[in-house]
Parts: sequence; C-alpha cells; structure tokens
Amino acid sequence: MNILWVFAHPEQRSLNGSLMTDALRTLGGLGHAYEVSDLYAMKWKAVLDADDFGTPPAGRERLFVGAAQERAYTRGELSADIRGEIEKLARADVVVLHFPLWWFGPPAILKGWFDRVLVQGLGFGVKAPDGRTRRYGDGGLAGKRALVVTSVGARLSGFGPRGIHGHVDEVLFPLLHGTFWYTGMAPLAPFVVYGADRHDTADGARTSAALGERLRALPDEEPLAYRTEAGGAYDGDLVLRPDRAPGRTGLQVHLRR
Amino acid sequence: MNILWVFAHPEQRSLNGSLMTDALRTLGGLGHAYEVSDLYAMKWKAVLDADDFGTPPAGRERLFVGAAQERAYTRGELSADIRGEIEKLARADVVVLHFPLWWFGPPAILKGWFDRVLVQGLGFGVKAPDGRTRRYGDGGLAGKRALVVTSVGARLSGFGPRGIHGHVDEVLFPLLHGTFWYTGMAPLAPFVVYGADRHDTADGARTSAALGERLRALPDEEPLAYRTEAGGAYDGDLVLRPDRAPGRTGLQVHLRR
Repeated sequence: MNILWVFAHPEQRSLNGSLMTDALRTLGGLGHAYEVSDLYAMKWKAVLDADDFGTPPAGRERLFVGAAQERAYTRGELSADIRGEIEKLARADVVVLHFPLWWFGPPAILKGWFDRVLVQGLGFGVKAPDGRTRRYGDGGLAGKRALVVTSVGARLSGFGPRGIHGHVDEVLFPLLHGTFWYTGMAPLAPFVVYGADRHDTADGARTSAALGERLRALPDEEPLAYRTEAGGAYDGDLVLRPDRAPGRTGLQVHLRR
Repeated sequence: MNILWVFAHPEQRSLNGSLMTDALRTLGGLGHAYEVSDLYAMKWKAVLDADDFGTPPAGRERLFVGAAQERAYTRGELSADIRGEIEKLARADVVVLHFPLWWFGPPAILKGWFDRVLVQGLGFGVKAPDGRTRRYGDGGLAGKRALVVTSVGARLSGFGPRGIHGHVDEVLFPLLHGTFWYTGMAPLAPFVVYGADRHDTADGARTSAALGERLRALPDEEPLAYRTEAGGAYDGDLVLRPDRAPGRTGLQVHLRR
C-alpha cells in the first residue's frame, strides 16, 4: 500500500513527532510505501485566497471560491503547492492525518490543507454521469481510506459516550463524516492518545506500540460504517428515512447498525 | 453593549460581506458599539508557531504550546497581533464569529484565531482559587456571549436532526460547546444561511433582515442551555451522572432540559 502521512505539529521533538517517526519505521518494515507532508516543516500556506488560483491580484473579479477552485483545477492552474498535494493524494491508498487536537479540531495549518487541497471538482461538486453529486461514500477520493491520529490532554472518560467533551467520534464528525466520507474516503476509527500532556517515556513507548498494532492491521481493518448517500437511506431532502434508526436523532444515526 | 465582530471571508463583495455591512449598520442604529476583526483584510497569521511567544528562533528549547502561551501571556510577551485581539476580547460583551462553513468548520484563518488568541491562562488552563480548572460555563471569558453567523450551500433539511450533514448544532459542537462554552462564553443559537450559493438579491435582503431581528433581540436572547462543569451534573471522571438525560448518549445530553 501507499500511505500519505500528513503531520501538523509545530514541534518535531514532541510526543507526536516521536510517534510519527516510529510509525513510519513500522510502515517501512511492513513493506508499505509512504510519503510525508510535514506541514510545519513545509511552511504550508494555511489560508485559502485568490493567489491559489493563478488569478492576477490587480483588478480581479469577485471571487467565488468553489468556481475558482474548479476552473483552476481543470486548467492545471492551481498553485504548485496545492498541485503537489493533489498528486500525493492521487497516489495514496490510505491518508493519515496526524495532529494535536486544538479546540476540538485540527490546527489551522491542517484545516487550511483541507480548505485548499480538497477543491471543487475533486473534494466536492463531483458530478456523476446522471448529474447527481458524488459524495458521502463516493466522490473524487473514493476507494481510499483515512485515519486520524490525534492527541488530547484529557482522559478517555471525558471523551466517552456521556463524557463532558462529547464522544470523540461525534466531536470528530466534521472530519470523519463531513470531510473523509464526504469526499469518498472511508474513515477508520480514530487513534486517540489521551492524557498526552502527562505522557512519560514508558507511556510514549506503549502508545507507539498501540499505533504500530493499528498500522499492522491497516490492510484488513473495517472502516466506520457510515451510510452512503447513494444507497437509498436518505430521501430527496437528504433526511434519513423513517425506517432507518427509527425514532432516533443525533450523529450516530448516520452509522448503519 | 460592545460587540466584537470577527469576519473570515476572502471576498468583501460576497453575500457574507454585504451581510456584515448591514449588520454593523443595524448594531450602530441600536446604539451598540462594535469593533471588527476582518481577518483576511488584516492578513491575520493563521498558524500558531514559536514566533507567537517572543522566543528567539535560534537554538530554542522544545516548544510546549500551552506552557509557552501562558508564560508569554503572563509576561506580556505574546506577539502584538495576538495581544491586540485579546484586548478586543476583553472589551467585548458579545463576540460574533462570521464565516462561510468550509468542511463543516471555520476557515483556517479563523481556526488560527482560536489557536493563537485563546491562550493557556485565558482560554484554557484557568485555575480557580481551590485549584479546579475553570471551564464549561466558567473560565477566562465568563460573562460574555458568542454568536456564530455562517453560510452553507446546502439546504436546511440536510442539517436537521436526521439530515445527512448532521444536525447543525451538533456539527458546530466543537465551536459552540468546545470553544465558546469551554472558555466561559455562553453560545447563542447559530445563525445559519442555507442555500447561500443560490442566493439572489431578494434572498440576500431577507437574510439581512432576519439577522437584523436576531441582533435587535441580542440583549435579551437566552443562550443554548449547556450544562456547567461546576454545577454537579458530571462526576469526577467528567461523565454525565446517570440521573441526567438517563439512558441517552450523544452530544445533546449536554443540554439541560
């Protein structure tokens, strides 16, 4: 397999930095190929703006983000850094997003990777021959799988089904369902390092070993069972039909079970 | 009242640009004072890094983000752009975050505003005299209220309680509960512009009028009824006690009702 590892931490000498080093060694040992996008090391431009689209800044027209993305993508006029990431994505069977959880989401530098790389025509607004929009289980990145590796200061209990921070799969829903699944990538269960602020060397070794186990199982692991949009579970208003998860609401209704 | 309006859109001539112009006029007409942080216009630095803390880049020590933030905050050594935003926050009774919803979250430039401005000692890690951490209904920004104004291409039905995109209050949970409420700010119900891609002039006028109504009601509006951490609803592991929302899971259990 070919793995794209996207890393978004400002400090290489962090727990996350060691975790990535160990993980890449594991992947190599397993015979997988990998590429790394170390966003801080690359000085990745986080902010989507008109410069992404080869638009001349002087006297430019009103910017419609989606349309500008799609035009530049189709014409090969996206800025070189974005084109490079799209090429890496095209080569990847599995995409790993590795970041510390800040304000219950990815650091800005990684959010900007989504904003800028998952352009209209690739990440969203991908049309099927019959005119339908391909998304939620289908789309420009269909067939790939995606894994979140993240660290939090809090303990596991606070991220459980009734934990104060919200269940971690629901807190990460914008990423797992709204980004991965939306673009066609099947999300794997996130790998979360709890109590990261209090990790000592032994904890770090245990965490590395646990992530190694996940990586060894990668070819066979079942992704989260989100419902596809095309599979008939949703009506024409994109509302879940009454016979699915009957009487229930909440983000978990979007899982088949 | 004093309102801080944080705007994160790359195009002033957008629907959101007009909406802000109208909203600020309304606020002025109502006799409120306001300040604007137009992040794109300010060329706001989105990416948290060691430069935020006045740390010399050569031969610097390993970066621990929270500790570095708190040290620089306490010593007045945060970079000038961050100090400016913290001063605006201190003056504000209500904070409005106004942005197009990209990948079910704020654009990177706004995510970076949270990452960089809500520093340890102000946004998190604020200690009460008895040593407890002040958060979830209490904290460095307690007493303020916060309003999300956002636009989406999708229709309302897809963001309803069983809509494919997830209920909008749950999709925005990392922001409403994990950021506003965590820091002590009481979140108001988000103002969401649906079908924004297909808005014509008449739609725009209706949307502006609807936002105007919300702004007129601002002094009296009841915030979302999230549970406080200090109020006894959670146990020592930060798990909701069994007699609250008995038998239920999901993000809505964190609302009192």
